Amino acid sequence: MNAEEFRKAAHAAIEEIIDYYDTIQNRRVVSNVEPGYLRKLLPSSPPEEGEQWADIQKDIEAKIMPGLTHWQSPNFMAFFPANATYPSMLGELYSAAFTAPSFNWICSPAVTELETVVLDWLAQTLHLPNCFLSEGEGGGVIQGSASEATATVVVAARERYLTTACEGLEGKGREDRRDQTMSRLVVLGSDQSHSSLAKAALIAGVRYKSIPCSSENDLALTGANVQAALEQCKCEDLEPFFLLTTLGTTSTCAVDRFDEITTVIRETRSPGTIWIHVDAAYAGAALVCDEYAHIAKDFVAVDSFDMNMHKWLLTNFDASCLFVRNRKDLTSALSVTPSYLRNPFSDTGLVTDYRDWQIPLGRRFRALKIWFVLRTYGVNGLKAHIRRHITLGEKFANWIRGREDLFRIIAPPAFALTVLTVANPKLIDWGLLNEHTETKVSEGLATSDIMPHTSTTELDHTNSLTKSVYERINASGKVFLTSSVVNGVYAIRVVSANEKADEEHLRKAFEILVRTTEDIVGQAYKVES
Amino acid sequence: MNAEEFRKAAHAAIEEIIDYYDTIQNRRVVSNVEPGYLRKLLPSSPPEEGEQWADIQKDIEAKIMPGLTHWQSPNFMAFFPANATYPSMLGELYSAAFTAPSFNWICSPAVTELETVVLDWLAQTLHLPNCFLSEGEGGGVIQGSASEATATVVVAARERYLTTACEGLEGKGREDRRDQTMSRLVVLGSDQSHSSLAKAALIAGVRYKSIPCSSENDLALTGANVQAALEQCKCEDLEPFFLLTTLGTTSTCAVDRFDEITTVIRETRSPGTIWIHVDAAYAGAALVCDEYAHIAKDFVAVDSFDMNMHKWLLTNFDASCLFVRNRKDLTSALSVTPSYLRNPFSDTGLVTDYRDWQIPLGRRFRALKIWFVLRTYGVNGLKAHIRRHITLGEKFANWIRGREDLFRIIAPPAFALTVLTVANPKLIDWGLLNEHTETKVSEGLATSDIMPHTSTTELDHTNSLTKSVYERINASGKVFLTSSVVNGVYAIRVVSANEKADEEHLRKAFEILVRTTEDIVGQAYKVES
Repeated sequence: MNAEEFRKAAHAAIEEIIDYYDTIQNRRVVSNVEPGYLRKLLPSSPPEEGEQWADIQKDIEAKIMPGLTHWQSPNFMAFFPANATYPSMLGELYSAAFTAPSFNWICSPAVTELETVVLDWLAQTLHLPNCFLSEGEGGGVIQGSASEATATVVVAARERYLTTACEGLEGKGREDRRDQTMSRLVVLGSDQSHSSLAKAALIAGVRYKSIPCSSENDLALTGANVQAALEQCKCEDLEPFFLLTTLGTTSTCAVDRFDEITTVIRETRSPGTIWIHVDAAYAGAALVCDEYAHIAKDFVAVDSFDMNMHKWLLTNFDASCLFVRNRKDLTSALSVTPSYLRNPFSDTGLVTDYRDWQIPLGRRFRALKIWFVLRTYGVNGLKAHIRRHITLGEKFANWIRGREDLFRIIAPPAFALTVLTVANPKLIDWGLLNEHTETKVSEGLATSDIMPHTSTTELDHTNSLTKSVYERINASGKVFLTSSVVNGVYAIRVVSANEKADEEHLRKAFEILVRTTEDIVGQAYKVES
Repeated sequence: MNAEEFRKAAHAAIEEIIDYYDTIQNRRVVSNVEPGYLRKLLPSSPPEEGEQWADIQKDIEAKIMPGLTHWQSPNFMAFFPANATYPSMLGELYSAAFTAPSFNWICSPAVTELETVVLDWLAQTLHLPNCFLSEGEGGGVIQGSASEATATVVVAARERYLTTACEGLEGKGREDRRDQTMSRLVVLGSDQSHSSLAKAALIAGVRYKSIPCSSENDLALTGANVQAALEQCKCEDLEPFFLLTTLGTTSTCAVDRFDEITTVIRETRSPGTIWIHVDAAYAGAALVCDEYAHIAKDFVAVDSFDMNMHKWLLTNFDASCLFVRNRKDLTSALSVTPSYLRNPFSDTGLVTDYRDWQIPLGRRFRALKIWFVLRTYGVNGLKAHIRRHITLGEKFANWIRGREDLFRIIAPPAFALTVLTVANPKLIDWGLLNEHTETKVSEGLATSDIMPHTSTTELDHTNSLTKSVYERINASGKVFLTSSVVNGVYAIRVVSANEKADEEHLRKAFEILVRTTEDIVGQAYKVES
């Protein structure tokens, strides 16, 4: 493809993308292709000779589009949003043009330096404490995802802990101490922590223990929860070295009690023993607003903080921004330098080699899209964007509250997320429901795994009604929602935080919820009576 | 940025990219900015109000460009290439527009299904054995980098080994066996393996042992090397569970003896005990050519194979293609499924959820760019592209051989890479040089760490001459090369495999090498005499 062909192809691609965005809300939001649909549409091997762009492009609408779930659609209210915007697309385009697997500073100094600058900008915009700025001992790094960031800090925390545990030892003695300690290490997180924490522990080869949270505390992890977990670890001869806390849990957007938790850790452990990480993948974006800034004050006592600009801050996936208080914690753990990666700049120690801040070696020029987004929207634009969704979310929650006959909200609506169940007319109340599940929690099960399908309690009945409503709505393709199981309760999550989402879309989703629920509850009781 | 503004901005960006590619060879190939240059050019915080694209775009040429090292320049002959092409850029653009962190099939079925199809296409194109196709028990997955792929398979191999080791045990007994085994696990690779192997072992929390290779075997890992390493592990009560072999090592593009190695493993270990991985990050691309296809035959006996389309196959970073013989090895190790990731499609087991094939949860739509590249070039176009560089590389090596007075080639030139040193007129011959370093190897040092700076042997002298030549050339900014240390020898790597690289560029690089070497050697002996 020569320059002229590229110009023509790129213009055609841009028109197709603009048209896609302009008409996206008319498309079925969640794909309804059958598994294996695409293989039937494509040849079984690549062409021997090259094809023209026009022929390739045709296949996007014909073959790819039916298999897309449209995350940019204003009818997408599932998972958490994944905002993409025009300036972020331009960032990705330039990044591809400037391709460099920029593992070292010298691979392309601008890749490293822009990353440092824009992450400092972002830290300020999020009202993070100064300890996370690069001018001191901390700094930010762009990772691919919050899950990758968690895996990275778990490994760094493990190495920091083991290094201290083996201090002063050498040779066999050191190896033995390391092995013994390793076998007792445990990662802690609440039972509302994202599953990527369990996966990070698995990757790092250490145990993982989840701490039960209760609905009384709005599913937030408390200081008392952590205290109890630390004591239990002691009884079991386990050494906790990492604690994940969350700002905006996946199921309900709960906010852990950072102040209480960091106080407990400070009072019971030597500094640097337990690495405290804040997973703020989605809700961290709200810290741009002054009214949320107070939350960030508590982060002065944590080791690391991660938020995804690719969720709620208008930047296409991937742009997970990880900030650490002490960058040496990462580089001491993750630096491996053979001769072919050595260079005079790295040797001086004056430059940053981001390969030592992450699991993979190479990295893309992701700072460009963050730079473009921050500049195109400005700080005030970002605040307005977040506030608009917060307001929309509050409206939606109020509509739901207005239909107590149909719905129950099972956790405080927050950050544009509302989590609800169908209000089974025969259901015992929420207090009893809690009692029902508390037993299982105290038996040590991870609550998110509790799905009491087997007994025919009232809760099962409600769960099954809610599930029917959820499945029928998603099958319609008019809106796309996610379900979750919270302390044994099957719930529907509605989060509307796409750039294109407006009141009309949420209202439509609400009406679909009402109609579907009336219909299903009506049928259920007709059958029973 | 609305649609009209995007159209205008995107057209301007495309013109800038076309102009950049058309004139790239006139730019200084390696950036010569001072560390910290960019912070001085940018405001210390993001703007309060949004800015216009025209103002943002201006800063690309003014502030970013001076800090770029131009990997697409035909004068870039460092590391390994990182080809980006117009069709791959279009793939990245669409991927950004269709943003979805596609962890599950239902997140966007086309993302998963196109990946499965194009990786099957690629496996065929690379002449890989059928066991790596998705129609059987294997399949391919796109990772971010070869280093990430290595970390992924090391973790999967560890889990596979531990699961077998703990078979039949439960509770405390199982935990104890797991801990004991874990402390004895060791990852093996040759001393020419990429440093990401050591890092993968670190991430997985296991030991790493590098196996010395000798220049007599052209720095390839042999069956005998592996046999000796296995015996040594037995003596040290270590349990090897993973072996990394390489097709095209970083320093010299050596090709390990896959047939011998797999035979040794098969004859001494039960099946499934030691996971054999092939790191073919760069040279794997050559397997598209029929004349290299015979190498892939031996992969019938390995567990996994990884190559980067983003090095030599015209696709912008990132597109590391990992193929496994048994996809269950990945999913059994890496699947963690909370309720909010459950869905009817995944529950059927009929769809692929690539999150279980990798470390991070989310993933981009990287299959698009691979699809566009395979279709734009066609299989014959890819073969022609590789063969052109192989021929260029052979020419370059011959020019170097023609100046025996100035240069020594220290390993067989391969895959367009030539590795050379300055021919110190006073130097003892290469045989003696080997003797000099073998001692250190037998002392158990990783050879890549041997840099005998302290003694003033002939080798030091040559190393210092070569280093001077290398540093002066890179400082000129006319071409960009990489150095490496191979069995104690400081060497210059020249690899020209950019799409834009032609004979004239290599010839220019050769002439710069000759002039610089004549100058430096001349000076050195003038000073001495």
